[in-house]
Amino acid sequence: MNNNPQLNKNGELQHLLTTEGLPASILLNILDTAESFVGVTARDIKKVPLLRGKSIFNLFFEPSTRTRTTFEIAAKRLSADVVNLNIAASSQSKGETLLDTVNNLSAMHADMFVVRHSQSGAAHLIARHVRPEIHVINAGDGRHAHPTQALLDMFTIRRYKRNFRNLRVAIVGDILHSRVARSQIHALTTLGVPEVRIIAPKTLLPAKVERLGVHVYHDMAQGLKDVDVLLMLRLQNERMLGACLPSSEEYFKHYGLTQEKLALAKQDSIVLHPGPMNRGIEIDSAVADGKQSVILPQVTFGIAVRMAVMTILAGN
Amino acid sequence: MNNNPQLNKNGELQHLLTTEGLPASILLNILDTAESFVGVTARDIKKVPLLRGKSIFNLFFEPSTRTRTTFEIAAKRLSADVVNLNIAASSQSKGETLLDTVNNLSAMHADMFVVRHSQSGAAHLIARHVRPEIHVINAGDGRHAHPTQALLDMFTIRRYKRNFRNLRVAIVGDILHSRVARSQIHALTTLGVPEVRIIAPKTLLPAKVERLGVHVYHDMAQGLKDVDVLLMLRLQNERMLGACLPSSEEYFKHYGLTQEKLALAKQDSIVLHPGPMNRGIEIDSAVADGKQSVILPQVTFGIAVRMAVMTILAGN
Amino acid sequence: MNNNPQLNKNGELQHLLTTEGLPASILLNILDTAESFVGVTARDIKKVPLLRGKSIFNLFFEPSTRTRTTFEIAAKRLSADVVNLNIAASSQSKGETLLDTVNNLSAMHADMFVVRHSQSGAAHLIARHVRPEIHVINAGDGRHAHPTQALLDMFTIRRYKRNFRNLRVAIVGDILHSRVARSQIHALTTLGVPEVRIIAPKTLLPAKVERLGVHVYHDMAQGLKDVDVLLMLRLQNERMLGACLPSSEEYFKHYGLTQEKLALAKQDSIVLHPGPMNRGIEIDSAVADGKQSVILPQVTFGIAVRMAVMTILAGN
Repeated sequence: MNNNPQLNKNGELQHLLTTEGLPASILLNILDTAESFVGVTARDIKKVPLLRGKSIFNLFFEPSTRTRTTFEIAAKRLSADVVNLNIAASSQSKGETLLDTVNNLSAMHADMFVVRHSQSGAAHLIARHVRPEIHVINAGDGRHAHPTQALLDMFTIRRYKRNFRNLRVAIVGDILHSRVARSQIHALTTLGVPEVRIIAPKTLLPAKVERLGVHVYHDMAQGLKDVDVLLMLRLQNERMLGACLPSSEEYFKHYGLTQEKLALAKQDSIVLHPGPMNRGIEIDSAVADGKQSVILPQVTFGIAVRMAVMTILAGN
Repeated sequence: MNNNPQLNKNGELQHLLTTEGLPASILLNILDTAESFVGVTARDIKKVPLLRGKSIFNLFFEPSTRTRTTFEIAAKRLSADVVNLNIAASSQSKGETLLDTVNNLSAMHADMFVVRHSQSGAAHLIARHVRPEIHVINAGDGRHAHPTQALLDMFTIRRYKRNFRNLRVAIVGDILHSRVARSQIHALTTLGVPEVRIIAPKTLLPAKVERLGVHVYHDMAQGLKDVDVLLMLRLQNERMLGACLPSSEEYFKHYGLTQEKLALAKQDSIVLHPGPMNRGIEIDSAVADGKQSVILPQVTFGIAVRMAVMTILAGN
Repeated sequence: MNNNPQLNKNGELQHLLTTEGLPASILLNILDTAESFVGVTARDIKKVPLLRGKSIFNLFFEPSTRTRTTFEIAAKRLSADVVNLNIAASSQSKGETLLDTVNNLSAMHADMFVVRHSQSGAAHLIARHVRPEIHVINAGDGRHAHPTQALLDMFTIRRYKRNFRNLRVAIVGDILHSRVARSQIHALTTLGVPEVRIIAPKTLLPAKVERLGVHVYHDMAQGLKDVDVLLMLRLQNERMLGACLPSSEEYFKHYGLTQEKLALAKQDSIVLHPGPMNRGIEIDSAVADGKQSVILPQVTFGIAVRMAVMTILAGN
């Protein structure tokens, strides 16, 4: 019927592995479903019984308390049973293969796996091997994809800008190492954003990135002109200093988002960041805490988006 | 209205950060509420729906399985959703600030933070910055305060001694490094205990401790005379040997609570300890397991006291 | 009434510490109860309220994500409150004794402890000291016992072979270090399996193992002849190379289960393994994933068996 590993034979979402190749209708359905959950998480009793009796495994082969927490809280508010597995220190070190670990958990009648892995393609590999009643959500794999992060960014953009038409969106920073940037680019272009820019030093750009349909800038003054939405990226500074960048001060001077640089974008532009922030490196505190920042609303919407993804998957 | 960071504008408990400065009426309300929860935890089905749909985050910047467990079990018996975060190894190491971490979790619609931190004042800092609908419980900050431990000690004392009037209470051991001792002293004096003694070697006493309204003793024979309640402290021996103390044997000889030394106190005196105990250092096993010991009832009451604190905060 | 530390005064199961010394009626009752839970875990809502309001503590003094997960998921599907304690890094390192830790948790009104410990006898020690309303399940202690693993093996054998009469069962591999093998031998002989074989190199056999009622083989060709059930053991290879074995290649050559060696057993024989598997060491992938393998069904049945044990204990 189709070759998209994310869709079942009816064309419905079976796994969420990447925003690449997903039709706009599916992305929009996730955003629309998330709208209803924004209300739930603001209620006094933040709980709905939609996933009661389901077993969701947070399979974290790469540690990330923050991301794990967002999925854990989303699952608990859907009344699912959640089991956290930090795998680095256990079975994997006992020599078991990734697929043995997953087969094992599947045999416990898992309903859903949330997978974080340092290797690109890990979530795809798992999705290819699990039984048809099990759903896989990619919570970040290597440099490849982080689809729920991109979806919560889309949700946030739509909330503040109404729709995706007529927008100029700039992604700023370390595109080369960023799974978030890749997932954002695919989501933005699918949802019809007419102009997606990326702004980065040459050493932090992947080869042939223009093929993804983006416009490349190396200069913030040019790149931010008339922009509606700024998607800042986290600088993985521990890995890069020396290799790709002279120093974090130098980076901040040229690419760090200050109020002055932000003034080059549209007056009503909004600033997003996936967190955790390196204040004073990729973003200045005055901007991070300023009135154009929607960084904390992103987090709030992130719970609703993850609840939406889980609910849609469980129903397919 | 008031400057007490723990009270809301109606004078009700908004955060529990320290026993210092809390009126007796609030302390007594916690103890009275805890009485009802002692019954719940002894029932066959140890669960009440009081905090159903609430999200409680155990934010432990300093590891403590034991303390984390008491809050986790208290929250689960109130039907809350609990998320444990051991922060040392994650966001903090990624360079995020404490307040960014907290703002992030707040944006997930947290209802309550239970905070343990090695820095004095960390819980206060968080409480000052969270939105008004979020409550903070200090589960131990540096050498400063550990209010739920002090409250469960007060609960235990009242259970066995009926009231706080006419009592002689001795706190024995490492006062200098002890957040527990500070919280106990404030609670005891507020609740009207007429005579609070502290017994410690000079090297383990903070400067000007008498200003807190306590009587200082360096000798167990004098200090324990006619005492109704003995609050033993844990010796943080790993940190202190050499610096403050010649040896743990020497400490035990002078300040370790043996049956002989206990005989100097009143016949019906009770012995408390916050745990974990160093048997043979600050307390002899014959006393720890003896008939004047109420160390295990303390643990039982500790769950009820934490349930009470959570319930009161959630209602304010 | 009786001296069996696992039975209460009515002869009912009070703790599950070992399969040794348990009457067949109790083992069979666990297997029969588990049959009903196999259905529950395959349902859409995999949850029953049998242990609602009960507090189950996973006390893991030795890390094991896999085993901990099976107990956690079993307890959650019974609607219990589960608290995971990884003790190595906390109280124990603060100098508290094992029994102080357990007494402490008992005082929080624990209903059940699931205990994993590297020392043989740890679960027995705990069971001897807890109050009569608390139940202890041994989840593996040193080289001694791992009764729930053996019970899920028995459940699997009965599922595929109908009953235990007329069976020839071979346990293959590192008997010397295996708590699983010990628990399997006791369960198999109690349940009436007429012929239990063990196949291992001499260096991996405990002294006087024949006294347990088993037949010893050192050669796979002889040992596997006419066998109905193969219970493969995990090679604890990190500990043993050099000391007990020349190399893992040499081990695989002689004792690794390949299709060729499996062909020596009965055509309808089944292959079990407690996991995690060392593929290419004790078992070849062609066998592990082959049609005689029941390794994944074992995992499924393991959840049901653990739910059965918990339910039976809670009712006694």
